[in-house]
Amino acid sequence: MNTSLDCLPCFFRQTLDAVRRVSDDTAFHEKVVRQAAEWVRNVDLSESPPVMARQLYRYLRELTGVADPYAEAKARDNEMALRLLPGLRERLAASDDPFTLAVRLAIVGNLIDLGAKSDLTTAEVESAIRDVEKEPFSGDVAALRQRAGKARTILYLADNAGEIVLDRLLIEALGPERVTVAVRGAPIINDATMEDARAAGLHELVEVISNGSDVPGTLLEECAPDFRKHFDAADLVISKGQGNFETLSNAPRDICFLFKVKCPVIANHVGLALGTQALVWLQGATKAKKKQ
Amino acid sequence: MNTSLDCLPCFFRQTLDAVRRVSDDTAFHEKVVRQAAEWVRNVDLSESPPVMARQLYRYLRELTGVADPYAEAKARDNEMALRLLPGLRERLAASDDPFTLAVRLAIVGNLIDLGAKSDLTTAEVESAIRDVEKEPFSGDVAALRQRAGKARTILYLADNAGEIVLDRLLIEALGPERVTVAVRGAPIINDATMEDARAAGLHELVEVISNGSDVPGTLLEECAPDFRKHFDAADLVISKGQGNFETLSNAPRDICFLFKVKCPVIANHVGLALGTQALVWLQGATKAKKKQ
Repeated sequence: MNTSLDCLPCFFRQTLDAVRRVSDDTAFHEKVVRQAAEWVRNVDLSESPPVMARQLYRYLRELTGVADPYAEAKARDNEMALRLLPGLRERLAASDDPFTLAVRLAIVGNLIDLGAKSDLTTAEVESAIRDVEKEPFSGDVAALRQRAGKARTILYLADNAGEIVLDRLLIEALGPERVTVAVRGAPIINDATMEDARAAGLHELVEVISNGSDVPGTLLEECAPDFRKHFDAADLVISKGQGNFETLSNAPRDICFLFKVKCPVIANHVGLALGTQALVWLQGATKAKKKQ
Repeated sequence: MNTSLDCLPCFFRQTLDAVRRVSDDTAFHEKVVRQAAEWVRNVDLSESPPVMARQLYRYLRELTGVADPYAEAKARDNEMALRLLPGLRERLAASDDPFTLAVRLAIVGNLIDLGAKSDLTTAEVESAIRDVEKEPFSGDVAALRQRAGKARTILYLADNAGEIVLDRLLIEALGPERVTVAVRGAPIINDATMEDARAAGLHELVEVISNGSDVPGTLLEECAPDFRKHFDAADLVISKGQGNFETLSNAPRDICFLFKVKCPVIANHVGLALGTQALVWLQGATKAKKKQ
């Protein structure tokens, strides 16, 4: 996906959020926002939104000298999700359809995306999790269950901190012995890194690998060779979040995307209403071409 | 009120919305958005948001050659509100407290603000009007009723097209013989002008005057002398909308502000939650100083 002009106001908002997280100096905030305007004035829009965001956050890192403005928010969201975990396990145990519930919990966790909503509160997340089965849902869970049942190897592309704790529940339902989880190679927005996977306890459950990149998505051409091997060889790839969707929507393989529809650009692209819990299968650019 | 840094992403969104209303050429949209970035790079933030918006829209007018990008939207919203009017009159006739309902309808109509929400739909407006009594409300309606009862002259500052039709109901409840309605001097966003007052039928009910300015608010120092006379002499001034609040919150007289809280900057300023129907009395900078 290319970057839409509608992404630009959003990048502005993200700039303001990131700089406020590292400084209380409003004159500094203003300076950074004006420099972001200069960046928008000249930026190349042919890249996907996560690649653009990476550019912006690298630029902010230079301006502010802070490598990880979201460190505190990520720790907070991991802790919040870990606190909810025992209750969610009970809910799954009592459910008539625990697999579908685990899929929905993994998707609702994707709400914890501070790129999409800077001022997301713990109360909003907790309320969304409570009402997880009331939210609109689109997609074929049975197909995922079937494909997962046959897969010897599953690559699970994590998205954000906090969310990655809820991913555990789906990974447990999928059968952890077959699952490898991939995280970002370096901090970017509130995306999950190796540290967050450890906080979620995933390292005790599955193999966790880094994708070797600091894009808030999965830009295959710059991912680490080990990641690429897993990506190409896995029987099933499950991809979490908008950023992974935006960067992998033309990837050369079939992928099951799980995400909350959180912005009008994505809503328009996938034809689903804002707020929908989406399970989207894409067949992959290469395979799709072969079919023609 | 000064312009907040949080207003800048919003101005960007408004730019994109305005240019899309006048052209289908995406290359032109991109050009204009990049020029808006250049504007943000250098703009003076010490003015109020409506004064900044006026600058931006004048600049867009120069770039696009279109004087009134919202003409069609304004006509549509006036027609929509006129269609609802008979049903609302019935609802008022059946109400135990028609004055409060008229106040709430006038405030809910303030939702029709295409500066605050570019993609507002008719369905959203109709649903808000239907649920007008369920929305959160803050303010002292009794004080307004009392002050209005004693006032020989009332100046009513209109805000947007569509909304101005619902204002009729409150103006009728106030007693039209005492009311003068003021509208913007020239088209700006979807703010109501003389044409919209006529579409709403207000010219048959009350005196309608122009404030003589193209700011989407009320910038006293550039308003027409006739407007200033009314503003200074009126026993009561009722002011609709965020733009009038942002420009008049330090005005040298007492004013009753009626608006929907539609953005985080205003919500924070007045200490009310987003979506609240707000009735806010301000005593005026001069009077407040005298008290000290």
